[in-house]
Amino acid sequence: MTPFKLTEELIAQIEELIENQRDTELNSLLGDVHYADIAEIINELNEDEATYLIKLLDSHKTSDVLTELDEDVREAILGNLSSKEIADELGELDTDDAADIIGELPQEMIQQVISEIEDREHAKDIVDLLRYDENSAGGLMAKELVKVRENWNVLTCVKEMRAQAENVTRVHSIYVVDEEDKLIGRLSLKDLLTTSTKTHIKDVYIAKVDSVNVNEKPEEVAKIMSKYDLEAIPVVDEIGRLVGRITIDDIVDVIREEADKDYQMAAGISQDVEADDGVWELTRARLPWLILGLFGGLGAAAIMGGFEEMIAKHAVLFFFTPLIAAMAGNVGVQSSAIIVQGLANDDLKGSISNRLVKEMLLALLNGVILATILLLFTWVWQGAFLSSLAISISLIAVIVVAGFIGTFIPLFLHKRGIDPAIATGPFITTSNDIFGILIYFMIAKLILGI
Amino acid sequence: MTPFKLTEELIAQIEELIENQRDTELNSLLGDVHYADIAEIINELNEDEATYLIKLLDSHKTSDVLTELDEDVREAILGNLSSKEIADELGELDTDDAADIIGELPQEMIQQVISEIEDREHAKDIVDLLRYDENSAGGLMAKELVKVRENWNVLTCVKEMRAQAENVTRVHSIYVVDEEDKLIGRLSLKDLLTTSTKTHIKDVYIAKVDSVNVNEKPEEVAKIMSKYDLEAIPVVDEIGRLVGRITIDDIVDVIREEADKDYQMAAGISQDVEADDGVWELTRARLPWLILGLFGGLGAAAIMGGFEEMIAKHAVLFFFTPLIAAMAGNVGVQSSAIIVQGLANDDLKGSISNRLVKEMLLALLNGVILATILLLFTWVWQGAFLSSLAISISLIAVIVVAGFIGTFIPLFLHKRGIDPAIATGPFITTSNDIFGILIYFMIAKLILGI
Repeated sequence: MTPFKLTEELIAQIEELIENQRDTELNSLLGDVHYADIAEIINELNEDEATYLIKLLDSHKTSDVLTELDEDVREAILGNLSSKEIADELGELDTDDAADIIGELPQEMIQQVISEIEDREHAKDIVDLLRYDENSAGGLMAKELVKVRENWNVLTCVKEMRAQAENVTRVHSIYVVDEEDKLIGRLSLKDLLTTSTKTHIKDVYIAKVDSVNVNEKPEEVAKIMSKYDLEAIPVVDEIGRLVGRITIDDIVDVIREEADKDYQMAAGISQDVEADDGVWELTRARLPWLILGLFGGLGAAAIMGGFEEMIAKHAVLFFFTPLIAAMAGNVGVQSSAIIVQGLANDDLKGSISNRLVKEMLLALLNGVILATILLLFTWVWQGAFLSSLAISISLIAVIVVAGFIGTFIPLFLHKRGIDPAIATGPFITTSNDIFGILIYFMIAKLILGI
Repeated sequence: MTPFKLTEELIAQIEELIENQRDTELNSLLGDVHYADIAEIINELNEDEATYLIKLLDSHKTSDVLTELDEDVREAILGNLSSKEIADELGELDTDDAADIIGELPQEMIQQVISEIEDREHAKDIVDLLRYDENSAGGLMAKELVKVRENWNVLTCVKEMRAQAENVTRVHSIYVVDEEDKLIGRLSLKDLLTTSTKTHIKDVYIAKVDSVNVNEKPEEVAKIMSKYDLEAIPVVDEIGRLVGRITIDDIVDVIREEADKDYQMAAGISQDVEADDGVWELTRARLPWLILGLFGGLGAAAIMGGFEEMIAKHAVLFFFTPLIAAMAGNVGVQSSAIIVQGLANDDLKGSISNRLVKEMLLALLNGVILATILLLFTWVWQGAFLSSLAISISLIAVIVVAGFIGTFIPLFLHKRGIDPAIATGPFITTSNDIFGILIYFMIAKLILGI
């Protein structure tokens, strides 16, 4: 497979074809292109061109294209379509994707669009899904699944399954329910391929099946599915009835988004921006953290101002403040990143106090090594042993405290139910800068006896 | 499903049962526990206990447990098993998992273990897989797949498929090959469920099938599979022959590892450590970056030493160096994180120079806002307008340069084929600290005319 490559030439070519309304050529040019690639193309077009293409291409394909578009592009295109046209697109989609798109429409449009979806069962399923919180298993699941009753015989079962499978893009498991629709087990497709057709369901189904509650958080669903290597998981309501199914492709998106969010938080960017967003959006995402850093810096300046009388005798102490601040920040970020990641991957075991003791031991070890290097360097360089010693000993203290803060804050936030990722970035750096410089000057003052 | 919860009580109970060799109770206690959960339990046991459990439990289950264990725990356990015992475990596993485990064994063991695997076809497949680089599609793929020839009739096909499916845990697609084993298309399971049994393969198969080359990088495979929502992708060799298949659960691991790695790099931790690793391993992962930061700090100190004559008249300038350093670091990390993430997700479009201009505009906007806040604050606080102005104007320059460095370095590394994630953490912070402080003092000197 040669991967699709989005080029400026291709975009220019398509824009020209649209301008001249060369529909046949457009159709043949894009006929074999995957919908995810067509979405990339459309993201680069202007609103009129985009709408033109969506109306032109086969709605079987454009419905999938719609799910892959950037949100603002999709919103603009949908604004140019009639409720009948939108309903036709949604009719082609799985219920979860259809519900996601419909949820973005203005309230007054939703009802109208739903009333125009031809397949009434499909419309009913979409309405069901709209009830669930976006940030829950219910918000992720689709209604498309293959289920059979335990008391069916194999003939009924295969017939029913064939009908159901028509609506299901990918069949993973066949779910077995009792007469109250409660999930009681599953049949694997492999069993279906390798079992004689005369067998009865209740004799062949596997009574053990993983499932998640409809209110479960997406991150938890992701953890369960990736831990147990599941490609699909059934979703049950509060009394155990089978209400939907989540597939791994949706979970891959959850994992990516979660990782991106943590990474951006660590870098001091409020979530949900991309490199191609506008300057203003990017500024809004970054500026708050920079302002936090600014006030942290002002705090550090105030602390240093309080030790001004030391300048005359030990100016060198002031030259080392960026070093102290940087080390405090780096150690804090390292400690907190390890904790945040451990919490996200669920592999933190043992008590909080053990964890703190370990991190502080680690910080002490790093601190002693770094302080020794620093002592040798500054002593040789500055020639003043006592101030070099003061700087080095302060460095150890600063590093241990930074390790403590970096470990404690995310654990504390997590216990309080707050996303600890917020603690890794500028928040830790800034507070460690201030504490670091304060500790540094206090210890230096003590040792140098000023 | 009530999720499994690893408790200290459970571990204590299991340890006691092992000590008293209560095999029946152990078997019934762990019989229904998922292998991923048993792996979590065993990670907490000592070597002898762990080996005891692995030998006790059904090898159908323990083989899967082995794949989920921490690497050091697995190594210790395998060291206590005979080559025959290891061969039996590997015989139960899919070829990709078996090859991964066997690849960790000492060279002299590998041949012996392979020679004792009973199923010779399986052994041959494992040996084939050992040839591939771990960091390639070949290193990820398994040999288990279901394939049919285009010239078969449906009867042969179903019979052959049933035999093949016995070895395949999850059937995703049925691949269609020509007489030279070249991949030419696929059949979906859904087609199989919904098509009459009298149809011929060449009349029903889909001639379009995504595939990846055996030398493709795992990250690329992950991008392709998640972009196109694939649950399995066939792997072909240089001349298009079908040699294996990669499933989405392996890709989920790749995505997680990739995200974890980028996150750790950004936090200044060399990859591949977890919170529960030993103090020494954690130190080794962190110390190099801290030493880098230390020398950065020494560089900053040297620069400040060069401006020592300014201390007498403008001590306040020195109080603001942590602020300048922090802002330079934060802006640099923000810019580089956006670029690194854009590169990782393949959504950076347009030229490098456009990107640089945009980031510098953004930095200028942020810089002016922040400098204005700083000017008002310091002016009111310190009362000295000129030095406040000098600090504020320098801040703008520092932020713009930091934005430039933060954008340029990852783009440059990426162009050179180096993982740009290395640029987000302490590397950017440290170089921006130094440049920031240098620019700050130079501009301040210019404005204050010292």
